[in-house]
This record gives sequence, structure tokens and C-alpha cells, in this order.
Amino acid sequence: MAKSPQEEHPQKAFGWAARDPSGILSPFHFSRRENSPDDVTVRVLFCGVCHTDLHSIKNDWGFTRYPIIPGHEFTGIVTKLGKNVKKFKLGDKVGVGVMVGSCRSCESCKQGLENYCPKMMFAYNSIYHDGTKNYGGYSNMVVVDQHFVLRFPDNLPLAAGAPLLCAGITVYSPMKYYGMTQAGKHLGVSGLGGLGHVAVKIGKAFGHKVTIISASPNKKDDAIKRLGADAFLLSTDPTKMKAALGTMDYIIDTVAAVHPLGPLLGLLKVNGKLITLGLPEKPLELPIFPLVLGRKLVGGSNIGSTKETQEMLEFCAKHNITADIEMIRMDYINTAMERLAKSDVRYRFVIDVAGSLSE
Amino acid sequence: MAKSPQEEHPQKAFGWAARDPSGILSPFHFSRRENSPDDVTVRVLFCGVCHTDLHSIKNDWGFTRYPIIPGHEFTGIVTKLGKNVKKFKLGDKVGVGVMVGSCRSCESCKQGLENYCPKMMFAYNSIYHDGTKNYGGYSNMVVVDQHFVLRFPDNLPLAAGAPLLCAGITVYSPMKYYGMTQAGKHLGVSGLGGLGHVAVKIGKAFGHKVTIISASPNKKDDAIKRLGADAFLLSTDPTKMKAALGTMDYIIDTVAAVHPLGPLLGLLKVNGKLITLGLPEKPLELPIFPLVLGRKLVGGSNIGSTKETQEMLEFCAKHNITADIEMIRMDYINTAMERLAKSDVRYRFVIDVAGSLSE
Repeated sequence: MAKSPQEEHPQKAFGWAARDPSGILSPFHFSRRENSPDDVTVRVLFCGVCHTDLHSIKNDWGFTRYPIIPGHEFTGIVTKLGKNVKKFKLGDKVGVGVMVGSCRSCESCKQGLENYCPKMMFAYNSIYHDGTKNYGGYSNMVVVDQHFVLRFPDNLPLAAGAPLLCAGITVYSPMKYYGMTQAGKHLGVSGLGGLGHVAVKIGKAFGHKVTIISASPNKKDDAIKRLGADAFLLSTDPTKMKAALGTMDYIIDTVAAVHPLGPLLGLLKVNGKLITLGLPEKPLELPIFPLVLGRKLVGGSNIGSTKETQEMLEFCAKHNITADIEMIRMDYINTAMERLAKSDVRYRFVIDVAGSLSE
Repeated sequence: MAKSPQEEHPQKAFGWAARDPSGILSPFHFSRRENSPDDVTVRVLFCGVCHTDLHSIKNDWGFTRYPIIPGHEFTGIVTKLGKNVKKFKLGDKVGVGVMVGSCRSCESCKQGLENYCPKMMFAYNSIYHDGTKNYGGYSNMVVVDQHFVLRFPDNLPLAAGAPLLCAGITVYSPMKYYGMTQAGKHLGVSGLGGLGHVAVKIGKAFGHKVTIISASPNKKDDAIKRLGADAFLLSTDPTKMKAALGTMDYIIDTVAAVHPLGPLLGLLKVNGKLITLGLPEKPLELPIFPLVLGRKLVGGSNIGSTKETQEMLEFCAKHNITADIEMIRMDYINTAMERLAKSDVRYRFVIDVAGSLSE
């Protein structure tokens, strides 16, 4: 008979889990595996709340395994080391993002692109090598293979830096891959949420003019005054959209809802690049004329490799980039999820895990 | 009052034109402008029949100006020179493709990408600088600015080489732009018509393994034995499509009909590139999950610049690449159009203009 989450492994752990598609999170006792030679134990301090967490607890994509403990952008302190671990020492400040495992032998893994390994393991709602379920960072401690643990730069705050481990790398990686890092271009950022607001900051750090494209007029002041965007384009205003035709070199599209790509493609110049990062559940409408006649492309990207995530953390530390966060206590999480569903957060909830999780 | 096509200009010309959306072509007397200092007069020898010609004579895209003389891939002999023309001399073998003019001052033109100039002029169905209509290569002679006239390499046949001026550059340019020229990759070519069959030959010349993806099982033998493709994938066979998942580095999609992109994206490896060259009249369905999870891209491309077209002609001459053609007489054109509509040609009709056009 299968063991219960509480008795499956030797290391006792505690977190908040959803048990069914209501998505309601509540206290949950479970266990973590004993450290294998390459494993690092991390005491979780802070954990960001990603939109994926919300999709997952409600089983929006149809592959949730309950009970589920979300959380895939968390920071903390190394508290225990497997015998092979040389990369870290006790007390190190570290972060863990979306990935906690991969096959390490496929073509993608061999190229250092574990994030495209077909067997890549998500920090939660996935099955580990030993056949047990992975639980995420809404919990007091985690056990993670050192390969997937990131060193946190000294001057990067552990709370406001935590969302970089998902939101940050998700927008940084495509800017690198699709050749969007040469200064002086015009970058559009569609959707101003967790990903979008970090994309603005990273885009500015690369030296671009950044325009936020949003359907929410009330985000305009914030976008410019607080985030430092150069312009705000209201996507529901046909006159302004028309005036902006053919003016952007790149667009980072963070909108996860089903939406037409035509208006965004229209904003791009010749050779423009539209990078889609959201995961709408239905195919999007792609008009081919602008693609062909303007040699434009639509490309995707999925988080980033371990190596690139480390690089991104150094980049953000150097440029003083963190997420704008609203710190919450663990027992506020269900309200936070309701607010997140309405995009009522500027711009990322971060759970003060160590400071508010009590048995 | 506007002058008639016959009396508008001083140089008498003769060709076959469609007068209405029936698309029926018939003999048509008109005139060409006097050579301005930069103009070259070309006696047309051979003209390829592109699918765009069929769309245009039937006003499928809604912007046809009747009467219309199609033809935008033709070869011939220089017969008259404007006083500034140094690039050519009388008797030179030349070709003219899709472009006959552009603004020469916009950002695209300054970068040598006249094919993305917003004022780029098509060889027919467009309006020239002087306000008169451009007529294409289904005619005895043309007058074209030297900038848009291509030198035809000596060993490239004028008949079988003519389709390279549209079909050839249309598939060559994206292979260059999207970085698909390093040998040893696996290239899929979707759709085996005028563009597709040239894509196979150019892909082989770049050193790729080439698989033709087609819904027509009767094209298999031809694809492999005659064109030299390495494999044939029947797109209507779910078992074979499944077995081919994740095996291709690139796909050149030449299908102009509305079709889903998901099956093609599925054939691509991580970092795969799908290049769409057809112009379906409705948006295509683009599933975002494969784009994001496999960092794939969908890109477009439109013919190529004058410079790149010249480069492509040299490349084809060096690698002995020509189109597979069925030579026809001018008075066969209406039957040819009917056959083209049914894809009943292997793989390009070329009109023996000089040998069959008589008043």
C-alpha cells in the first residue's frame, strides 16, 4: 500500500496544500526525502505567488495531482548538505525556481538547456526520480538536487528577489535567446502583471525604450512613475493603437488569456519579434500577412536553464532589479489567490514563509 | 480624361490580360513608358506562372486592378538602355522578379531590404512613380529600373531558371535570415508545389536532410526519385506523423490554404523554426504550448532583396539548381491556370513568351 505523505520520507515537513479543485489551501503535514549525496536542504524564507500556482491549485490545465503544495520561486538558507555537495555550505543564501530535476542526458540537457528536457521536473505537481511527488515552496523546508539550487547574490533581497526565480528568468531568457539585448531598441511589454513589471525593469536595464501595452487605463501612472516605463499604450484605444503601428522592435507578451495576435503584430516594425510567454488554453489567431510582409516572428520561451537563471540573478543584482512585492502571511494566501485572479496586486505577492508558517 | 493603356505611353507593347474576376486571359494591346535614364528595356523570353498570378487574376485578395497582365518571374534580353545605365549592356541576359520599384529612402530601403519597403511596387497590379499601372511579364517587353533587374548567370537556363526569381528567392531568403544554412540539419518542406520543390533543392544544396510533408501520397515517388528528397511524410497518416514528432530542425511551410500549425510545430525539435510563406486569407490557429515549452518560433518572409536575389541566382547556378518546369505556349495559359488551381503541374508552368506570343 502506498505510504501517506506524512510517512513517505524520513524528514518531517509542513506547508499549505490544496486538496481539490476548489483550490483552497490549508495546513498540511507531509515529509521530504532524506538528502541523497547531491541534495541540499533549504529552509524556506520567502516564496513568491505565481499565476501558475493559481492555475495549478484549481486544476485549470487538467493535470493537477492533489494534494498539491504550490510555490516555485522561493529563497532561503542552506541547512543540510548531501556528501557530494561542494557548491554550497551551511548558511548560504539560495533560491530555487521552477525546475528541480531533469534527465541530465538528453540533447537539451547536454546543451545545458534542462528547461527544455522532456523529463524536466517542476518544483511541484511532478514526480521525482524515486517515484514520489514533489511539493513546492509554500512549506518550511525543501530538499533539492544542488544542480537546481541557485546562489543568491549578497545584495539581492531574499523577499523581493524571490519572484525573479520564475518571473525574472521567464522574461530574461527570451531577451537573450531572440537577440533583444542590444541597447536602443523599442520594447513593448504586453500585460502588466508579475512578468510584465519585471520585463519593464530588465528591458530598461538593457537600454531600451519600453512601452507598456495594457487594457487597464488605471495602470498608466504606476507604469511610468513607479516602474520607469517610457510610455503607456492603452490597447483598447483604436486611435492610439493605430498611431503606434510599426513602431516597436520587440514585444514581450505576458498575457495568458486567449487574445488575438494581430494587433500586437501590427505594432511591430519590419523584422519585429513577438515573444509569447503566457499559456492560453486555446490556440491563438495568427494572421499570416503581417508575418510574411514584415518578416516578423512569433516565438515562445519557457523559463531558463540553471546556468542562465544564475546569470540573470547576477544581472538583476548588478542593476538593482527586484520585483515590486506585497508581502503576505501564509494564512492570507486564499485571499491573495482571489485577488490574484482579479489582477489585484502590484505586482507580486510574496509569502513570508519563515515568519508566518506555524504548525 | 485618362488615356487608354494603348496610348498612355510611347512604347507599344502586347501581352495577355485578364479583364474581370473570371480571370480569363486574352490578348491585350497596351504601352510601356519611354526609358527614363535608369530604365532598361527587356525583351521577354520566358515567364513563370506563379500561384499569385492565379490569385490576382481572380481578385482573390480583393485588390486587383483590371485589366491585369500577370507575370513576376521572367527572363529575357536587354534591348534598350537609359542613359545612366552602366550595369547592363545590349544583349545581356537578365531576369526580373516580384519587385520593380520601391521608395529607396525608408529604413528598409536604406538597409537594402526593398522587399520590405511599404511602397514596394509589385511587377504587376501596382502603380508606378508616374501614376501609371505596372503590367507584368506575360508580355513581349518590359521597361524596368536597372536597380530591380538581375543579371542572369551564364550557365543558368533562361526558361527553367525563370521561376527562381520568385519561387527560388522566396525559399532562399528565409533560410538565410533565420539561420538555416549550416549543413547537417533536418529540414521539412510542407507542400510540394512551385515553392516546395525548389525548397527541397536549395535545402539539399545547403547540406540538409530534407523531408517532404505532403497530403498527396501520389507525390512520394516523385519527391524522392526526381527531386532527391531524403524522405516523404504523409501528413494525413496519424501514425507516421506521430512517429515523426520532434525530429525536424526547420520547416518551410509553402501551403497557402488555411491549415492548422499545431501538427507542423509538433514535428519540430526544441528551438525548431517554422517558416510560413503562403498567404492564407484567414488567420491560422497557433497553439501556444508547443511554442513556449519547446522554444519554437513561427516566422514569415517575403521574397528577398535585389542584392539577395542576385546572390541566390549565383548560388543556384553554382549548384545547378533550376525549377522543374512544364513549358507552355501563351495560348495554353487559361488551361494552365485551371490545372494550377488543382496543383496539376510538376512543378512550374513557364510560358515560352517569345516563341508563342503573336499579335
